[in-house]
Amino acid sequence: MKLGMIGLGRMGANMAQRLMQGGHQLVGFDPKPEARKSLEDKGAESADSLAALVAKLSAPRIVWMMVPAGEITDSTLTNLLPLLAAGDIVIDGGNSNYKDTLRRAGTAAEKKIGYVDCGTSGGVWGLAEGYSMMVGGDENTVEQLRPIFETLAPAKDKGWGRVGPVGAGHFTKMIHNGVEYGMMQAYAEGFSILQHKKEFGLDLHQVAEIWRTGSVVRSWLLDLTADALGKNPSMAGIAPYVVDSGEGRWTVAEAIDLNVPAPIITQSLIERLRSRDSESFTDKLLSAMRNEFGGHEIKKE
Amino acid sequence: MKLGMIGLGRMGANMAQRLMQGGHQLVGFDPKPEARKSLEDKGAESADSLAALVAKLSAPRIVWMMVPAGEITDSTLTNLLPLLAAGDIVIDGGNSNYKDTLRRAGTAAEKKIGYVDCGTSGGVWGLAEGYSMMVGGDENTVEQLRPIFETLAPAKDKGWGRVGPVGAGHFTKMIHNGVEYGMMQAYAEGFSILQHKKEFGLDLHQVAEIWRTGSVVRSWLLDLTADALGKNPSMAGIAPYVVDSGEGRWTVAEAIDLNVPAPIITQSLIERLRSRDSESFTDKLLSAMRNEFGGHEIKKE
Amino acid sequence: MKLGMIGLGRMGANMAQRLMQGGHQLVGFDPKPEARKSLEDKGAESADSLAALVAKLSAPRIVWMMVPAGEITDSTLTNLLPLLAAGDIVIDGGNSNYKDTLRRAGTAAEKKIGYVDCGTSGGVWGLAEGYSMMVGGDENTVEQLRPIFETLAPAKDKGWGRVGPVGAGHFTKMIHNGVEYGMMQAYAEGFSILQHKKEFGLDLHQVAEIWRTGSVVRSWLLDLTADALGKNPSMAGIAPYVVDSGEGRWTVAEAIDLNVPAPIITQSLIERLRSRDSESFTDKLLSAMRNEFGGHEIKKE
Amino acid sequence: MKLGMIGLGRMGANMAQRLMQGGHQLVGFDPKPEARKSLEDKGAESADSLAALVAKLSAPRIVWMMVPAGEITDSTLTNLLPLLAAGDIVIDGGNSNYKDTLRRAGTAAEKKIGYVDCGTSGGVWGLAEGYSMMVGGDENTVEQLRPIFETLAPAKDKGWGRVGPVGAGHFTKMIHNGVEYGMMQAYAEGFSILQHKKEFGLDLHQVAEIWRTGSVVRSWLLDLTADALGKNPSMAGIAPYVVDSGEGRWTVAEAIDLNVPAPIITQSLIERLRSRDSESFTDKLLSAMRNEFGGHEIKKE
Repeated sequence: MKLGMIGLGRMGANMAQRLMQGGHQLVGFDPKPEARKSLEDKGAESADSLAALVAKLSAPRIVWMMVPAGEITDSTLTNLLPLLAAGDIVIDGGNSNYKDTLRRAGTAAEKKIGYVDCGTSGGVWGLAEGYSMMVGGDENTVEQLRPIFETLAPAKDKGWGRVGPVGAGHFTKMIHNGVEYGMMQAYAEGFSILQHKKEFGLDLHQVAEIWRTGSVVRSWLLDLTADALGKNPSMAGIAPYVVDSGEGRWTVAEAIDLNVPAPIITQSLIERLRSRDSESFTDKLLSAMRNEFGGHEIKKE
Repeated sequence: MKLGMIGLGRMGANMAQRLMQGGHQLVGFDPKPEARKSLEDKGAESADSLAALVAKLSAPRIVWMMVPAGEITDSTLTNLLPLLAAGDIVIDGGNSNYKDTLRRAGTAAEKKIGYVDCGTSGGVWGLAEGYSMMVGGDENTVEQLRPIFETLAPAKDKGWGRVGPVGAGHFTKMIHNGVEYGMMQAYAEGFSILQHKKEFGLDLHQVAEIWRTGSVVRSWLLDLTADALGKNPSMAGIAPYVVDSGEGRWTVAEAIDLNVPAPIITQSLIERLRSRDSESFTDKLLSAMRNEFGGHEIKKE
Repeated sequence: MKLGMIGLGRMGANMAQRLMQGGHQLVGFDPKPEARKSLEDKGAESADSLAALVAKLSAPRIVWMMVPAGEITDSTLTNLLPLLAAGDIVIDGGNSNYKDTLRRAGTAAEKKIGYVDCGTSGGVWGLAEGYSMMVGGDENTVEQLRPIFETLAPAKDKGWGRVGPVGAGHFTKMIHNGVEYGMMQAYAEGFSILQHKKEFGLDLHQVAEIWRTGSVVRSWLLDLTADALGKNPSMAGIAPYVVDSGEGRWTVAEAIDLNVPAPIITQSLIERLRSRDSESFTDKLLSAMRNEFGGHEIKKE
Repeated sequence: MKLGMIGLGRMGANMAQRLMQGGHQLVGFDPKPEARKSLEDKGAESADSLAALVAKLSAPRIVWMMVPAGEITDSTLTNLLPLLAAGDIVIDGGNSNYKDTLRRAGTAAEKKIGYVDCGTSGGVWGLAEGYSMMVGGDENTVEQLRPIFETLAPAKDKGWGRVGPVGAGHFTKMIHNGVEYGMMQAYAEGFSILQHKKEFGLDLHQVAEIWRTGSVVRSWLLDLTADALGKNPSMAGIAPYVVDSGEGRWTVAEAIDLNVPAPIITQSLIERLRSRDSESFTDKLLSAMRNEFGGHEIKKE
């Protein structure tokens, strides 16, 4: 199929390339000329504006947005929708909040433009291994896009699926990331305990390698963890500072809204906040309180 | 090699069988005659007492214990050690607490009997797929046993290794199980949130299948979860009651002893306690307290 | 002073009564005639509509809203504001979300009507003991209301204060309730451990009474807990079911928005969700997963 | 009564002083001469050895130990017991683990020496305000000591009591401290959120003062927190480093042993470990994992 790709960053460029490798025709747009040039070199057409991109597609047009969630998605869509016509389809492949997706799909629907949300997992490995995709949208609309998903996925009929109406794709991806937070934290805590048990002199990379084959905790994340531990067993030069990108927060908020206890996923997010709070007011006050009632010494800064 | 296997339950019988398939000779002992008979039928010798088992081995004798952790391991060892001689080797392949292992290895060492701890993961799938094994012991002793581990493992040089001195194997397995608790809880919370989002009508089995290929959260535990959700998507007939078997508790205690914060692993254990506390005194008292200060209605039992 | 009180439920009626005991003149409105009648009997004027209430006050009018947070506060304000004039003052004494308060204050400001938020603690005990009040609003506006706060408070200059601009009062009250969740949970867990230590045969009421005097954990909540344990030491007939009323959720969301780790307050909220999730899908799936990998028996429902 | 006090540190000296103020006669022992001298100056006899102390008491002798929990308690008792005779009574007023207490009481009982455990709360304020005491021991033995407890307590019949057999006192005190951890953490988190809400410019000391009167969260710990915030509102110069002294760990271990979920108390302990783990291996590994799967930048140290 022929489709437009808006946003040629790491994720967008890789997805465009995988699509071309699968025989699709791509028109790419990105505000950065070098990003456009790079995709052209791989065989795509490029466009230096949304209007130019739309002009290079024929109805029904298919446009995949792979831009940062939030305001950029909104501004892109605001500029894009007037250029499209009834029957065209926009796919949001980014990490949008599903509530934003529901709102945007409503706006698109007013013009009878199809809207599909695709929660995409796979990171930098997706180009080679394929992407896991959780798709939301009308059955007919998603069906039209089948050749695209079959190419992007690790296998024709594996690693992707329409999980429900529009919004369901981003919702499912959000929860996927919540689970990811919990799994990462579980591994990291485990290796940290091993690392502190000095008398056994454990080799964390070796342990990870052993666990990768045959154990109950084997996983792709463990494969990556083994790789990281192999390259840098003592985590030298790495700050104990963990970023969160939004999906974890949304998962926590959603769990509470739904009255579902999700203590582990929630605490995994809180641990990331904690990693960035090196001057914890909480801890300082606790130290002051101990001094107040018990005369316990305060550690000076 | 020829070796004795003490304990022919699910794990021991499977391991003996995998060893025989790999060309080793087995002498099996279990107090239950039918367990001995069953292994005999698969080609092993059997013994109806520890003494008989030892008599069928020649020095240096190798005896693998696959019995429940705790008192049974102690009583088995108490009866076994006097039957053995300097140079013989005992392997504890069960889920023993590493502190017990250190104590037992000391007792064996007094008689110059080698002692090796093997933390074994793989569950009911190990017979077919091989076991992941974390081995602790003297380098020479473990090296003597290499053919055994190479057969039990998923591949000759994968999924097993000597991780350190005696005790290190059970220690590493303990932490493995702590990680397992955290991963399981992360998945379970995620699917529970998905299950409660009624308006999207998500098919949990389908989501698990999508995640299995290409996603960041793919793992063997997810494969099993997909299987469970395929067989029983609504978890019908299953009580919300989760057993813990000890390793999680030890991991929590160890983390605290080492001053390592392990909030996720710890809370995963607490959630299991919670699942079995259906008449929570804590919650009843909270309800009574709300009534005391705010006049809020108490829900009657 | 003379003021109107909208909402004569448990909290509003008690506050009106305390104000009258302090020499203020009250005009009360409530949609329920019996609530109006009850306050009249205590010496207040009453009004059967907002218009009637406003008509009985003279400029600058002071109107205290003591109605359920959320939609009822919005609809009350929508009906009330057109009846008021520049220079009048509305106080929201309920548990409103501070973000709603900021929005409502903006609407009032368009008409030059003063808006003050008063986070009120004290529950059913406030009539006798006075209310703790965290007040937000312009300095001048709050100053005009000083006689009212001095009467409602436990003492003229204690237990209340202007903590900041409009919104700050409800914000501070929200955090107060978050702290309350954590304290309640800490006590409840402690007493639950004591209750489970059967071999010491502890009398929980006695322990609470001992702690009330001289101990580090003495508090008003402990006084109430002692009372509850005295009346019903085994919590007989009380369901392990704990309601949450919104403030805890908002505190959790705010902490995350501010990147402040608040693990205890957050978990205290999650525990309340958990208390109402007696058919936990999470736990059922965990049980199914254990069966998948280890063949562990599933408890039937 | 006349009694010996072993250990004249902050707690022991204060308790001795309060006892003398209540009319009791004290013989004090401490290895530090200046500690003995200081108590002498307040009217006590002093002894420069355990033998000398025992010699200055007449049967039935009463000896209160106020020494650090653990090895010092054991060595003190080992030296003390041979000096005593049947019918004498030893009281352990320190923060001993109740399991140690049960063991020590057994040793004393072999010589028919009474053993009483007194969990003591009140910290540096106890001298002036009295101590809250949870007492374990035989009914008759505790009854003999009644005049002592009545003097040490805040009031003759308040703030102390025999809660059960020997061990029950230290057990109850241990749980008291667990509750204390949770309460402290709840306050500290709440004030930390307030502190981060810059746009309201809240004065934390003022908020604490307001809450102290009439609010649901009023407590003695809040009184102390208000004092600390008054003296140092920004916690300047205080390291975010919180010590734990053992009782919290024991509470966590006990809760797990009893299968009682205690998530808040447990997490409060973990937060203290976290405060001292400024180079978290867990967080470094999480950062490395994010880089592995998503190419996310690692913050350098």
